[in-house]
Amino acid sequence: MPIDLNATIEITAFDWVPDFARGFVRDLRPRWACEELGLPYRERLISAMHRPEWYYAEQPFGQVPVVKDGELHLFESGAILLHLAERTGDLLPPSGQARADVLGWLFASYNSIEPLAMELGSVLLFHAGEDWAEARKPILFAEIEKKLGRLADALGTRDWVAGEFSIADIALVSTLREFERSEFFASFPTLVAYTERGTARPAFRRALEAQLAALAEEPPIAA
Amino acid sequence: MPIDLNATIEITAFDWVPDFARGFVRDLRPRWACEELGLPYRERLISAMHRPEWYYAEQPFGQVPVVKDGELHLFESGAILLHLAERTGDLLPPSGQARADVLGWLFASYNSIEPLAMELGSVLLFHAGEDWAEARKPILFAEIEKKLGRLADALGTRDWVAGEFSIADIALVSTLREFERSEFFASFPTLVAYTERGTARPAFRRALEAQLAALAEEPPIAA
Repeated sequence: MPIDLNATIEITAFDWVPDFARGFVRDLRPRWACEELGLPYRERLISAMHRPEWYYAEQPFGQVPVVKDGELHLFESGAILLHLAERTGDLLPPSGQARADVLGWLFASYNSIEPLAMELGSVLLFHAGEDWAEARKPILFAEIEKKLGRLADALGTRDWVAGEFSIADIALVSTLREFERSEFFASFPTLVAYTERGTARPAFRRALEAQLAALAEEPPIAA
Repeated sequence: MPIDLNATIEITAFDWVPDFARGFVRDLRPRWACEELGLPYRERLISAMHRPEWYYAEQPFGQVPVVKDGELHLFESGAILLHLAERTGDLLPPSGQARADVLGWLFASYNSIEPLAMELGSVLLFHAGEDWAEARKPILFAEIEKKLGRLADALGTRDWVAGEFSIADIALVSTLREFERSEFFASFPTLVAYTERGTARPAFRRALEAQLAALAEEPPIAA
């Protein structure tokens, strides 16, 4: 299995997160890509609660993941997915319309879909029960349902969003999982089936298990 | 000048938008990239108010821009910037740490910074004056100031975000312009100077003029 202490690739992840974030932290994406691509990787765990100041020199916003690949230092999971695919020549066609489609859907996932998932997390988790969040909910839900409806139309009967399984599916399935917390997600059977197809892949299961295994049960004591 | 009716590249833009959106619609990004790269392009204008249903087959969410490059069909401005850079071998280093840095910042702009600009637009423009938006403002402003503070630290004294001027700067400057509507943006002189440096480039000025020239003064009558 890809976790290997001597691997060239190092993925930075958190050592503990609250329950709602378990299985959803962004290091899942490079873990999943490494599993799909058969690339061994090692882990480096840092504290999310007491994020070390030196880490901001590696990741401008203190986010995970950071990935090191030999001498290369990479940040932002979208850029990391692109790097891993280009490194191996897999999960991203080298040219032509097939490549354009994967890149279009990769950015669609990060910029057209995920911002709504972030705002959903804001009203459902981080500001749950606050007056403004309750008032925002119905308007936000309507925006999300409109967007997801268009996404379902675009996906249609295809198994994967851009032809063969690709890094766009790793990004998009990961993002759609963030909507599963909401009641309305079940009203998009196309998207539910697509998300289940993605998360049923053995590489996803291994990546998820590895993230969960790295997370301590209790928050670590501050140093 | 890059606008050329016989150009291989076609950029789809809107024929009219409300005042607050003029100069901010996303077709500005490929226009700017084409101007920097000396690539001629032609325009195709569609209605934002009465978005044609056939357009959703080209762009799953009905957004602009779509770019055609000969037989190639591209959507999502981030993917389009990547395509234009790879097509010309300019504005994106071919390999190594320099490429990793540009791609990291490209995705940071689209996924770590711009979602906050979208939410800012939501409370300041689309839902201005609504109770929930007023209540959301101070919390959102605090989140944005924290993020922009980290961005300013990362930028430091550099002219451009990832070494030489690159597609990451086209994305990031375009995104930071969306924060200029807010009072607190002026409290980040590093970011103000960076944004001014970007928008002072002749290629940006030409792109902005071209977008504004394409927009009708009055909303077109519905067909």
